[in-house]
Amino acid sequence: MKKKITLKQIARELDVSISTVSKALRNSIEISEDTRQKVQAFAKLYNYRPNNIALSLKNRKTKTIGVIIPDIVHHFFSKVIRGIELVANKRGYNVIVGLSNESFDKEVINMQMLANGSIDGFILSISKETLQQQDYHHFKETINQGMPIVMFDRIVNEINCDKVIIDDLKGSKNAVSKLLSNGCENVAIITTKDYVSVGKLRTQGYLNALEDFKMSPETDLILKVDDELVSEDHLESLEREIEGLFKRNKNIDGVFAVNELYAIIAMKVARNLGMRIPEDIQFIGFTDGVLSKHATPSLTTVSQHGQLMGEKAAELLIDNLEREDEMEHYTTIVIETELIERNSTK
Amino acid sequence: MKKKITLKQIARELDVSISTVSKALRNSIEISEDTRQKVQAFAKLYNYRPNNIALSLKNRKTKTIGVIIPDIVHHFFSKVIRGIELVANKRGYNVIVGLSNESFDKEVINMQMLANGSIDGFILSISKETLQQQDYHHFKETINQGMPIVMFDRIVNEINCDKVIIDDLKGSKNAVSKLLSNGCENVAIITTKDYVSVGKLRTQGYLNALEDFKMSPETDLILKVDDELVSEDHLESLEREIEGLFKRNKNIDGVFAVNELYAIIAMKVARNLGMRIPEDIQFIGFTDGVLSKHATPSLTTVSQHGQLMGEKAAELLIDNLEREDEMEHYTTIVIETELIERNSTK
Repeated sequence: MKKKITLKQIARELDVSISTVSKALRNSIEISEDTRQKVQAFAKLYNYRPNNIALSLKNRKTKTIGVIIPDIVHHFFSKVIRGIELVANKRGYNVIVGLSNESFDKEVINMQMLANGSIDGFILSISKETLQQQDYHHFKETINQGMPIVMFDRIVNEINCDKVIIDDLKGSKNAVSKLLSNGCENVAIITTKDYVSVGKLRTQGYLNALEDFKMSPETDLILKVDDELVSEDHLESLEREIEGLFKRNKNIDGVFAVNELYAIIAMKVARNLGMRIPEDIQFIGFTDGVLSKHATPSLTTVSQHGQLMGEKAAELLIDNLEREDEMEHYTTIVIETELIERNSTK
Repeated sequence: MKKKITLKQIARELDVSISTVSKALRNSIEISEDTRQKVQAFAKLYNYRPNNIALSLKNRKTKTIGVIIPDIVHHFFSKVIRGIELVANKRGYNVIVGLSNESFDKEVINMQMLANGSIDGFILSISKETLQQQDYHHFKETINQGMPIVMFDRIVNEINCDKVIIDDLKGSKNAVSKLLSNGCENVAIITTKDYVSVGKLRTQGYLNALEDFKMSPETDLILKVDDELVSEDHLESLEREIEGLFKRNKNIDGVFAVNELYAIIAMKVARNLGMRIPEDIQFIGFTDGVLSKHATPSLTTVSQHGQLMGEKAAELLIDNLEREDEMEHYTTIVIETELIERNSTK
């Protein structure tokens, strides 16, 4: 038996992208006839087994759920997986996890690999690169082949499937309103670049809260952090950027950060600059993880209820897998966030 | 085509344990002839496909590594996975992750599922329940069938395979010696029950350090925390236990904790009791995660180099998979720990 070839090897051999190979194998009209034939011939020669062979075995149930997450180091994703495991185990399903590491190619490869007969359906949160490239063909094709997907947290409207999200806009609006009600007059936001859907929504919530309080936003108080700075190895540059924000705007008396780590780092920078928390400056973060709870002072946060999100996602997927009728219908569950008040606010 | 039956379903149907089913399917002499026949007949009737069918296709390479970890919420395991991913991706392999949730049954099920043709080999850390029950047949059988395993961190001597460990004993001895050199005269240890191999070794390192300093251990200063208290939801009981330790032994001036969370909680309890860190009491933890870095004061820790462990484990496994000769030889890599000094010690 010949060695099995991977999508990646085909792409490298023919000097095209993984996305092109994936599309060509599925006869996508986006790919030129010439390339399609070349890819398909090569795949055949090397015995590449595309998904649909496994999937056509309609009744072959693996009783396994495939989960694709962008990052394993985030506590939020760990909590979601815990929730998925909880429901899956209760209902007799197993869970395996693949990581995209925020890469489009890895997301495609992982989905191909798992869809190849190992699992019954996917629960996933989209990688940043995929959101940037806006290339969603791998989701569409998977669904078209009859394998259900449930998306959580980072979703896109372009794909029809079950979804579990939180009300990011409302959650951040509530948080910022809390800071304003507490007397803050110059609230800064530390957020991500706009292509990350949740970052964009949370920034919008910030703007809406200001509007409610008849305040106009100041560009100087909106810090959109470069993605490269998020990884643990680049915390120093993140610190410097936040320090710059504080030094340019000496009147900042409130900070809303769209994730926990940004908030913790910002508190550290503020402390080093001699500001007292919460007397001089108040902080609220998003995502309730271990850092928030154990920080000094402990951090007021908007809880995303990660475990609940995972539970709901698993319920949606298993319900879909076990549904008898073939009617198409998609559910979006919106989970309410909750403001957990601790010592970083008055 | 009949629906595929799982190991778990067979076990439930026949009212035996998953371990029994697993052993019976592999003709283990530990299982009575009667049970073996019953299990095998049932498995055949329901079209259960055991591993060896997939495994006998000797040259079928999936270019995928299966990782089984006990817990996804631990930062240490996330770091190990990051290291595995790094090397795997560089060498053209994919990674999928299964969680045992510290359960023996889940470990067996996950290994069965992944060994079923999805992966080429395993990297794993053993669940607490497996260590307690000392039932390692699933590792032995997997290796016997020609699928290599690399164990990391939580290993057992009974299994011959490649291993990556840290020198737990030396690491904790160094940490405790540091506290003693810093002038501490009553150093407590907060550790796990002895069946967790790493906890046992770290406790031994504590005792060795005391001996070096000609001090005799006091039972009262050794707190072996009940496993149930480790989960995030039971932190309050852990706090109370540590508070009890401090109240019973008012002279404690140093604490060595075998993991990061224990240390962080212990610092919090000490602060609440009015002790100053590091003036009145010094702390060292094990495992260098996000909590240690961002705690106030930041925590001195013994770094396990999780990412490096993952990298080494992946190298060992892939080297094994790609080795041409069939000679059996096993490597154990011992990674040196490093004491990272921060503000919780003088």
